[in-house]
Amino acid sequence: MTRRGLRRGREAARSDPPRRKIDYRHLKNPFPPMRVFSDDRIEAIHEAALTVLETLGMKVLLPEARRAFGSGGARVDEATEMVFIGREIVAAALETAPRSIPVRAGHRDRDLTLEPGNLIFQPGAGAPHATDLLRGRRPGTIRDYRELTMLTQAFDVLHMIPPLIEPQDAPVHLRHYTTMEVQLTLSDKLPFVFSRGSPQVDQSFEMLRDFRGLSDDGFRAIPHCYTIINTNSPRTLDTPMAQGLIDFARAGQVSIVTPFTLMGAMAPITVAGAITLSHAEALAAITLTQLIRPGAPVCYGTFTSNVDMKSGAPAFGTPEHAKASLAAGQLARRIGLPWRCASGSAANINDAQAANETQFGIWGCLLAGATVVIHAAGWLEGGLTLSYEKLITDLEVLQMVAEMCAETMAGDAEIGLDALAEVQPGGHFFAAGQTMARYQTEFYEPLLADRSNFGTWRDRGAPDANTRATSIWQDRLAGFTPPETDPDKLAAMQAYIRHNSALGGAPPES
Amino acid sequence: MTRRGLRRGREAARSDPPRRKIDYRHLKNPFPPMRVFSDDRIEAIHEAALTVLETLGMKVLLPEARRAFGSGGARVDEATEMVFIGREIVAAALETAPRSIPVRAGHRDRDLTLEPGNLIFQPGAGAPHATDLLRGRRPGTIRDYRELTMLTQAFDVLHMIPPLIEPQDAPVHLRHYTTMEVQLTLSDKLPFVFSRGSPQVDQSFEMLRDFRGLSDDGFRAIPHCYTIINTNSPRTLDTPMAQGLIDFARAGQVSIVTPFTLMGAMAPITVAGAITLSHAEALAAITLTQLIRPGAPVCYGTFTSNVDMKSGAPAFGTPEHAKASLAAGQLARRIGLPWRCASGSAANINDAQAANETQFGIWGCLLAGATVVIHAAGWLEGGLTLSYEKLITDLEVLQMVAEMCAETMAGDAEIGLDALAEVQPGGHFFAAGQTMARYQTEFYEPLLADRSNFGTWRDRGAPDANTRATSIWQDRLAGFTPPETDPDKLAAMQAYIRHNSALGGAPPES
Repeated sequence: MTRRGLRRGREAARSDPPRRKIDYRHLKNPFPPMRVFSDDRIEAIHEAALTVLETLGMKVLLPEARRAFGSGGARVDEATEMVFIGREIVAAALETAPRSIPVRAGHRDRDLTLEPGNLIFQPGAGAPHATDLLRGRRPGTIRDYRELTMLTQAFDVLHMIPPLIEPQDAPVHLRHYTTMEVQLTLSDKLPFVFSRGSPQVDQSFEMLRDFRGLSDDGFRAIPHCYTIINTNSPRTLDTPMAQGLIDFARAGQVSIVTPFTLMGAMAPITVAGAITLSHAEALAAITLTQLIRPGAPVCYGTFTSNVDMKSGAPAFGTPEHAKASLAAGQLARRIGLPWRCASGSAANINDAQAANETQFGIWGCLLAGATVVIHAAGWLEGGLTLSYEKLITDLEVLQMVAEMCAETMAGDAEIGLDALAEVQPGGHFFAAGQTMARYQTEFYEPLLADRSNFGTWRDRGAPDANTRATSIWQDRLAGFTPPETDPDKLAAMQAYIRHNSALGGAPPES
Repeated sequence: MTRRGLRRGREAARSDPPRRKIDYRHLKNPFPPMRVFSDDRIEAIHEAALTVLETLGMKVLLPEARRAFGSGGARVDEATEMVFIGREIVAAALETAPRSIPVRAGHRDRDLTLEPGNLIFQPGAGAPHATDLLRGRRPGTIRDYRELTMLTQAFDVLHMIPPLIEPQDAPVHLRHYTTMEVQLTLSDKLPFVFSRGSPQVDQSFEMLRDFRGLSDDGFRAIPHCYTIINTNSPRTLDTPMAQGLIDFARAGQVSIVTPFTLMGAMAPITVAGAITLSHAEALAAITLTQLIRPGAPVCYGTFTSNVDMKSGAPAFGTPEHAKASLAAGQLARRIGLPWRCASGSAANINDAQAANETQFGIWGCLLAGATVVIHAAGWLEGGLTLSYEKLITDLEVLQMVAEMCAETMAGDAEIGLDALAEVQPGGHFFAAGQTMARYQTEFYEPLLADRSNFGTWRDRGAPDANTRATSIWQDRLAGFTPPETDPDKLAAMQAYIRHNSALGGAPPES
């Protein structure tokens, strides 16, 4: 650059101060990773998990999966359906599992890369119920599923669509048509496909491939969707989950493996024990994907929290939950894979408990270095209900976290000795030149927070966070603009759904 | 130890598994420190702050303080009351300011050490109002001050007593008698003395010295109380604050210096600019203490957040607030002093906004490596109100943080291959030996969290967090046991108060 160019650049910088540029769509985790165990104890947990797989084994209900393990060198006992996986088989799988998984959404700016260091948020998933202040708590419906998908689409800080709620008014053999149509027409973010047997998975892949205008090879070349694989702890891989791992690996689509291990219930009562079990089960599932297709895209994951030992009820956002997240993060770094972690809340209503549990769980995920953070917004009752209001109040936290991901400038212009000299003792900076130049964009603008003084707030009807959140989600739905869709592809998808519905749909099993 | 002794020890360990031992009274910060600026930009901010003090100067309203600065080598302009402090004067002060400050409370187990790495929590401070669900929002009273001091005493995770609310029904010239008597009779934690002029400060010292049974020298030898010094930003040190710095330094008691710098209002709009101003003002105050008495105990501190640029209203628990905390932490490490940071909330009611803001602010302090975290519980309306319910709901977060400070074991007993082998696929760990041995103490037991299922919770009247918090604070007050006091010392203090009240008390100014 010439001297004149340099000078022009400087002048431009002076007259047009740097605006806060926050790309909520692509976040890097800026938080320093935190350890809960020493590195040698993490090694001991990893070794213990390998010992579990080798000597205690996994019960694998799907014959095809047992065959795959057997062909890969595992010892299989068909009578008991037990599979004993040698550590060298796991080691080989960890060699081929990809460290970085680019995924293709409906729009290039929604594409993601699942790799350590990136930070990807999902709202709550899998709730049978939905709730909001206007309509109360009810079994989830197609309408709820549509609305919650629209809200997921509407906020850039949510990056992937999870199975938010179960649309229980959609018959199970047709439900995948509903969920695919809603996801593909109302969002351009990465869609989710439930692993409910090969017939539904295959049809979901077909709908997605055609709607995206891809060939079979084009679809397989890069992931266009993902599924979540929960093992049945302790040490069981059931039929639909095993089939899902196989189907997704074959199709080059992403499996996110997340044993759901509640300390003291389906897992040992200690953080170290529960995480050992979770790690073993995750390694078993990851190994299966690599035996089916080396290099198949798969995410490590965990969802380890504790139960309330007085009642046996699941608890979330607890210290033990956060510690388990930290341990899982250490293990994920040990094996080098992208990984999924979870927040959550056991509260029955979106109150201070709910807010605190979810935020505490999120910080556990952040300090654990999670790649994907699920149940980061809206999840109540330990996942039995998705709350519209809580979705909004939690989104405020996610947006604040996203702000922490952005670089903060501390150049001479920001330190601003000129501005400091401009304002005398006793004065204020409201009208300082630096303030005037920046006030429109310098700060995060809250989604929900009300900072008016008590009198003003009371005179406006004393709206609490849930009341304000209700207005926000209603406004977002009222003003929702779906992404552009190709009318021919939409018509083709609808015809496909009609045709296959008439044929009886697809059963939720293989 | 003999072989037999070793064996016995091992057997005992087996039959009596390690119980979770959490000492909420003495916490070390386990969270990795996070940077918001590069080290060279922190150096630039430090240099800029020194330049501010040297060339722009501080307005110092107290003549005695100006004389002290002048004797120390600063250039003083008596006409404008401006003091220009050379960087070598600041450097010398930073040489003598202690890195570690042991403080003496009313009971040895409540003693603290203010030094980097320790983690000390205080509830909200300085609110003119109090609020609770039963009695509503009202100007703070002596009763509120008493009750909130009792609640501060009742929870081990709160370590120092701040000036929780202003007891407005105590006349200002007698108020320090009330606050000292309440603190000394209802708590054995480190008490706070307001810097409202030498007469009140001297009498407070006298009451404390006599109640603790100390000589003048014994009192001066180690801090027995602390004060908070707020500069008047920008760049003003007012009379009571300067007098407080001098009085506390002379008496060997702790000053916690915390410029209150709201970005865009009394400080520059940028994080870097506001923190430069805060740093400069803190260094000026610290320098004054060391000029008065080298080695005087003083804490660095900051309270830097932003205003809402639409309304000018203060905002707390924001991303900018957290970033400023991180920057202050980097500067505190740069100068090596213990330091105070703050959380807060601008919400008008203890709802999800309030919970999320305070917790977000707390995480900012934790990742900044703060020694003392103030406004960590109960603070609403940007500090205009202290909420009894919010005190409780925030305490849950502080207790969860305290749990994260405790070591988590991952020995062979915790990994527990035996336990993993004991439970077959499809089974559960509720009755496993490891579970039975540990279930009573393995997990954090929540203060407030309700994990019952929705039906049970609804049948019990659907109590939200604030309703449950109300029961908790009422129970804690009803069951409160004050620390033991020496009846003679108590009688002497009450006589002192009667005598001095009759003489007209002490004015809140020097």
